[in-house]
Amino acid sequence: MTDDVVQALSKVLSAESLVTDPDILQAHRNDQAEWAPSGMPSVLVRPASTSEVRAVLDVARALRVPVVARGAGSGLSGGANAIEGCIVLSLLRMNRVLEVDRRGMLAVVQPGALNAAVKAAAAEQGLWYAPDPASWEFSTIGGNLATNAGGLCCVKYGVTGDAVLGLEVVLADGSVVRTGGRTVKNVAGYDLTRLFVGSEGTLGIITEATLRLRPRPPKATTLLATFPTLVGAGTAVSDIMGTTRPSLLELMDRTTVRAVESWKPMGLDVGAAALLLARSDAGGAQGEEEIGLMAAACERAGSTFVMNTTDEAEGELLMGARRFAFPALEQQGATLLDDVGVPISRIPELLAAVERIAEQHRVLIGTFGHAGDGNMHPTVVFDRDDLDAMTRAKQAFDDILHAALDLGGTITGEHGVGSLKRGFLPAQLGPETLHLHRTLKGALDPLGILNPGKLV
Amino acid sequence: MTDDVVQALSKVLSAESLVTDPDILQAHRNDQAEWAPSGMPSVLVRPASTSEVRAVLDVARALRVPVVARGAGSGLSGGANAIEGCIVLSLLRMNRVLEVDRRGMLAVVQPGALNAAVKAAAAEQGLWYAPDPASWEFSTIGGNLATNAGGLCCVKYGVTGDAVLGLEVVLADGSVVRTGGRTVKNVAGYDLTRLFVGSEGTLGIITEATLRLRPRPPKATTLLATFPTLVGAGTAVSDIMGTTRPSLLELMDRTTVRAVESWKPMGLDVGAAALLLARSDAGGAQGEEEIGLMAAACERAGSTFVMNTTDEAEGELLMGARRFAFPALEQQGATLLDDVGVPISRIPELLAAVERIAEQHRVLIGTFGHAGDGNMHPTVVFDRDDLDAMTRAKQAFDDILHAALDLGGTITGEHGVGSLKRGFLPAQLGPETLHLHRTLKGALDPLGILNPGKLV
Ligand SMILES: Cc1cc2nc3c(=O)[nH]c(=O)nc-3n(C[C@H](O)[C@H](O)[C@H](O)COP(=O)(O)OP(=O)(O)OC[C@H]3O[C@@H](n4cnc5c(N)ncnc54)[C@H](O)[C@@H]3O)c2cc1C
Ligand SMILES: Cc1cc2nc3c(=O)[nH]c(=O)nc-3n(C[C@H](O)[C@H](O)[C@H](O)COP(=O)(O)OP(=O)(O)OC[C@H]3O[C@@H](n4cnc5c(N)ncnc54)[C@H](O)[C@@H]3O)c2cc1C
Repeated sequence: MTDDVVQALSKVLSAESLVTDPDILQAHRNDQAEWAPSGMPSVLVRPASTSEVRAVLDVARALRVPVVARGAGSGLSGGANAIEGCIVLSLLRMNRVLEVDRRGMLAVVQPGALNAAVKAAAAEQGLWYAPDPASWEFSTIGGNLATNAGGLCCVKYGVTGDAVLGLEVVLADGSVVRTGGRTVKNVAGYDLTRLFVGSEGTLGIITEATLRLRPRPPKATTLLATFPTLVGAGTAVSDIMGTTRPSLLELMDRTTVRAVESWKPMGLDVGAAALLLARSDAGGAQGEEEIGLMAAACERAGSTFVMNTTDEAEGELLMGARRFAFPALEQQGATLLDDVGVPISRIPELLAAVERIAEQHRVLIGTFGHAGDGNMHPTVVFDRDDLDAMTRAKQAFDDILHAALDLGGTITGEHGVGSLKRGFLPAQLGPETLHLHRTLKGALDPLGILNPGKLV
Repeated sequence: MTDDVVQALSKVLSAESLVTDPDILQAHRNDQAEWAPSGMPSVLVRPASTSEVRAVLDVARALRVPVVARGAGSGLSGGANAIEGCIVLSLLRMNRVLEVDRRGMLAVVQPGALNAAVKAAAAEQGLWYAPDPASWEFSTIGGNLATNAGGLCCVKYGVTGDAVLGLEVVLADGSVVRTGGRTVKNVAGYDLTRLFVGSEGTLGIITEATLRLRPRPPKATTLLATFPTLVGAGTAVSDIMGTTRPSLLELMDRTTVRAVESWKPMGLDVGAAALLLARSDAGGAQGEEEIGLMAAACERAGSTFVMNTTDEAEGELLMGARRFAFPALEQQGATLLDDVGVPISRIPELLAAVERIAEQHRVLIGTFGHAGDGNMHPTVVFDRDDLDAMTRAKQAFDDILHAALDLGGTITGEHGVGSLKRGFLPAQLGPETLHLHRTLKGALDPLGILNPGKLV
């Protein structure tokens, strides 16, 4: 079979576009969700054009071989994990920024362009590409789109899907569709752009994207506040969101604060139940006024320590606490990084549930995340060499998903379903909505060649 | 056939929910796009619950009768126009605001709730439901969602689709699906919410919506500027969008300014090629700073008159010019209100093309619209009693659509395709993307009972 696939592909692709070296295949087997299942690909293709992508899908269809699209492989849900015998389709060679239209405030890019490259190209024209997953320096636009990646600034500026005007997508049947266009508003037909955004390579291969650019925001003012109780921090989050427009609103729980403090001591209050970081980029006097409102909300909610700064370097120092959150937890052991969402009013309940789960399964869980969106990353820390601990960690991971659902939330706020959370989707969607997913998947990919076994 | 339908419906609906009075049926035949085709419905149903909606679709399926969903009937594309012999399904009785969650910053509403009612319920809790189509006082949330309605504030706050977290939808097969949820971020599965938003009643009946609320923005500062050339106005629009975040940015061309001035004289410069209205709601000093940047952009672009005001009453007076735009044009004759979008950099070219089209077809065309989004409403004015003029007006209307497409734009920015622009969709989408629309429609509504002949 593998030979057939390689032979068929070699007829339609240039030699450069076809890789069978076993070491390289092995390196393309997994994304960053180590504990999600994966198989060995039979071949890696690196198309250089939309027509090469189309040719790959033609072969896949003819031979009924699964195709797994892959950007940088930085995903956290096993979405890009290979399936035994599959074709891994890397978009990394299609990495050009094709156009930046300054006056039209848009960029046209290939899927393999790094988020960082798009930001840089926009900045050259005095503009800003907003979406900023923490992986922005090494993840691709195609991956960002296919997972609808979030980040820090989406509390004010939206997620990746909010920054895309149109797509070119190659479908399972080999047709090339263009969705959306170059305008901000467009209601000519169904919103196909959003159908492909977040579809994790299961409905089509994104081969081009037209992205929306924005004016660069003014310099940000940064606030840090600590709270003796989770409820206090939660109250502050709701109040801040209800009265201001923060450009960032992040939370770290006690376990995370302690992990940061023990790895990179910066004088954080390790006795606090939670720490909030907020920013206003309203600019000038208004920025200060907005930070003032945020500070007042924190104080009303019982914060014992509030500080803020308009100094950029100092602001970055404060942000360091949040940026170190995950690596600091990684210092303490192996990690299972979770990603759930709840309505912002229910953050304290989520954090309390996570604390109970940690106790119950005797694992350490540090929680941090995008409080302004209710999107939290409880991170289960355990000893990799202790098999029992690993089992308990996995149970804790699963229990966190159920806790989020019990609070009217979601099993994934930004990392996606992939193969990791596929088993939990029915609990969130219910049978009729799940059936609709299958109907759509069946209509667009009747042979099931696109990333089968992921998402749906 | 009509008797069969009425009889079958009478078995599953309460008497109150079923209307056969011919006068009432006649009144439910059209939306506000007078010149779009319509037929006589066989019955009007006014369900009071999701299960009644489901029962209606069960009957429609069994008897193969088309179902046309209807909110307030304020649509401008014939989307809610009846089809001969169809069931018109009015959602007006399902009009409750079920919940406003202040701390969760969301509202759960039935589809027949007026946009105004949702705004009011949000305001009672100190919050804001942003989407503001000019029809907000009389159009329904269901209609707003099904058309993905825009408005004035979407240049900063997004369209209706940007304010929805989740939906309940009854599908053609009678199943009831729930999309999205109560969280701002959610990537568990395909973005079904956005698939139904803008689908104009062709994919399912929206029976409930969870809407996102925001903090109320600060008081706005308003700017008015006039320009001797279209290119100057266009340059100002790009510059404003590239450097500030206006909460409103509207344009009126000379014909529109003259129509307003001759109907409601307010001292506007009738010699100007275009007039811009802009607002900043950044608040306080920042609002003034932002308006200052906008004023400077206008002056750089050759504006001959710029004024601004922080006084709310005076700001409303200035906004009057824009609010009177369409009614003022209506004073001059019958109107065909168009709705096209182009990248903002191409607004001057669109306006110039519209001027050429007006000359060529010897009709008056006044253009106004949402400049910050590139979404314009060229309005063809003609003498209703002159058959030849009506023909020329229709040709002008069509030519405007082609002009927008030639500029990389869209045939509809916010009013939708309905029956009015269905013939133009292939030109915008191309055969492969159109085929994907049909695939989706076929998958979700294989019998074609939901608003057949609209959109696709
Ligand atoms: C340190 C770190 C920090 C992170 N921070 C964030 C964060 O803040 N927010 C966040 O949302 N995520 C974050 N992630 C997760 C990850 O970076 C994102 O999901 C990112 O969008 C994946 O991009 P990628 O290019 O690596 O895609 P991959 O991992 O290669 O692929 C992701 C999914 O997209 C599909 N895919 C990729 N390209 C295409 C294409 N062109 N067409 C169709 N399908 C395609 C794949 O099949 C797969 O299902 C982080 C990851 C790491 C390791
Ligand atoms: C004076 C005036 C100003 C306007 N200004 C704007 C504006 O600024 N921006 C803008 O975008 N539009 C505007 N419109 C157009 C119109 O008001 C909007 O399209 C509005 O969203 C329609 O709402 P409705 O309740 O009247 O829906 P209807 O006209 O009754 O229906 C519109 C479409 O939605 C479908 N539909 C309705 N309810 C449902 C449901 N529950 N489930 C599924 N499908 C449904 C219908 O089948 C139809 O296809 C304006 C119209 C007028 C008359």
